[in-house]
Amino acid sequence: MGEGSTKRVRVTRIKDNDSTAVTDALAVEEPLGIRLEYGSATNRKIENISVTMRTPGHDAELAAGFLFTEGIVKDQGDIAAVGHCFIACAENKENVIQVSLKEDVTPNLQNAGRNFYTTSSCGVCGKGSIDAIRTVSSFTQNTGEEISIPMEILYQLPDKLRQRQQVFADTGGLHAAALFSTSGELLLVREDVGRHNGLDKLIGAALNKNWLPLNHAVLLLSGRASFELVQKAAMAGIRVIAAVGAPSSLAVELAEEFNITLIGFLRGQRFNIYNAGYRIILPVYENPY
Amino acid sequence: MGEGSTKRVRVTRIKDNDSTAVTDALAVEEPLGIRLEYGSATNRKIENISVTMRTPGHDAELAAGFLFTEGIVKDQGDIAAVGHCFIACAENKENVIQVSLKEDVTPNLQNAGRNFYTTSSCGVCGKGSIDAIRTVSSFTQNTGEEISIPMEILYQLPDKLRQRQQVFADTGGLHAAALFSTSGELLLVREDVGRHNGLDKLIGAALNKNWLPLNHAVLLLSGRASFELVQKAAMAGIRVIAAVGAPSSLAVELAEEFNITLIGFLRGQRFNIYNAGYRIILPVYENPY
Repeated sequence: MGEGSTKRVRVTRIKDNDSTAVTDALAVEEPLGIRLEYGSATNRKIENISVTMRTPGHDAELAAGFLFTEGIVKDQGDIAAVGHCFIACAENKENVIQVSLKEDVTPNLQNAGRNFYTTSSCGVCGKGSIDAIRTVSSFTQNTGEEISIPMEILYQLPDKLRQRQQVFADTGGLHAAALFSTSGELLLVREDVGRHNGLDKLIGAALNKNWLPLNHAVLLLSGRASFELVQKAAMAGIRVIAAVGAPSSLAVELAEEFNITLIGFLRGQRFNIYNAGYRIILPVYENPY
Repeated sequence: MGEGSTKRVRVTRIKDNDSTAVTDALAVEEPLGIRLEYGSATNRKIENISVTMRTPGHDAELAAGFLFTEGIVKDQGDIAAVGHCFIACAENKENVIQVSLKEDVTPNLQNAGRNFYTTSSCGVCGKGSIDAIRTVSSFTQNTGEEISIPMEILYQLPDKLRQRQQVFADTGGLHAAALFSTSGELLLVREDVGRHNGLDKLIGAALNKNWLPLNHAVLLLSGRASFELVQKAAMAGIRVIAAVGAPSSLAVELAEEFNITLIGFLRGQRFNIYNAGYRIILPVYENPY
């Protein structure tokens, strides 16, 4: 991540009754407004889609990833350009980003913002949210060749992530999302103060690289697995999610619905499998007696 | 928290190459739609304000706390009733809540949802967000009698919180927000899968008890201190925030702007003071030589 992702401040450190003035690094948090420009050549419209509190850096990936994982834009090919807007305020020139769609591409604005959870006919409930995702995801029906990952490879992923989490190491304040191959190679990592932003940046970067669907990669989350994170992963076609923290009930239900392997509490030599454990290769024991 | 806040599922637990089928408790996550009913006696309107992914329980406090901390409703006295709506779906009857305002109370809908961050004239930037809060908070100019808290009392707060965090103990998956007196007495605690929901529930409960402004209490956050959490605390008049995790840059800026004492990394016998340390009482040493 760039220069702008950490900020140094003076703090008073209290330790064992001792007080010391020290310099500490903070994770930067700033709002990012995401705007969408679309329409025909003669009738372009601009709409404000969302404001998210994010760590500056990889903003174009964040915007593209957000539009994709929220179901507003279907394909990387729909996007003509992504760039920061320069508005009349010296302080915010990096805080508005505009995604311009190609001519005549129609965004699915019904999915914009929090309405995503309420598009189902049944109103607001877990099942409704899951139905909404089924409707809008291009990749949830994707099968392709199956993948599997050895248990020993899974054990190693959190350490490999930590070695690459530079801003976290400096500030203790960032969430990370990373893609690994099934042989444990780190393919891509993104960090952010907001866990959903970290994943949007990661998926936005994968979109740019034309990697989607991500049905051959393993997603590692540095924290908990919420519904929103599993939803975004499902939108990108991810089939194995491993989280260092706990999953929520709705995250597990969504994983079941879309046959996603969901692992939680991946720490040291242990983890829990919440769904589709058949993609994990466990060691075979021979009875020594 | 009630019955509905955890859910038991079968999981495969992998530990040191051993695989066991066990029952595990998950933190429940379900959407909650918040609706606002307002207007004159003869012309009532209903508007959908927000959908948040939350842990069921204390929904009325969550709705009231959200409307208050987002600046949509100014006062507990504006609210006539809060209750779940029964909509035609067997699964979602607990997932929509309606806040009905008293006759002729006008909600500040300009602040609804994510627009909160963009109401400032300068557009989207940290300064704009801070300006917006200054405009809408009733308590940010509140002075009142000053408070202070001894360092030794601060050290004890995380343990006291953990002893009361029942759902976290069961699931490992919940954020908590708690209010303590300056002598270290736990006054109130709320838990949720979403950290902002935990704080909204806490502030909503305090609203019900007529405790606002909360200028005599210490807020403890079980995780990191983001801009959004400090914003909500500022709206409730809180003057001391202690977080177990790291603060973000904008959280510190907001604390500076509103003269809020901000403590981070409160773990064991240590913490960092990011702003307004004068409210912390450090021990006085006498030179033994």
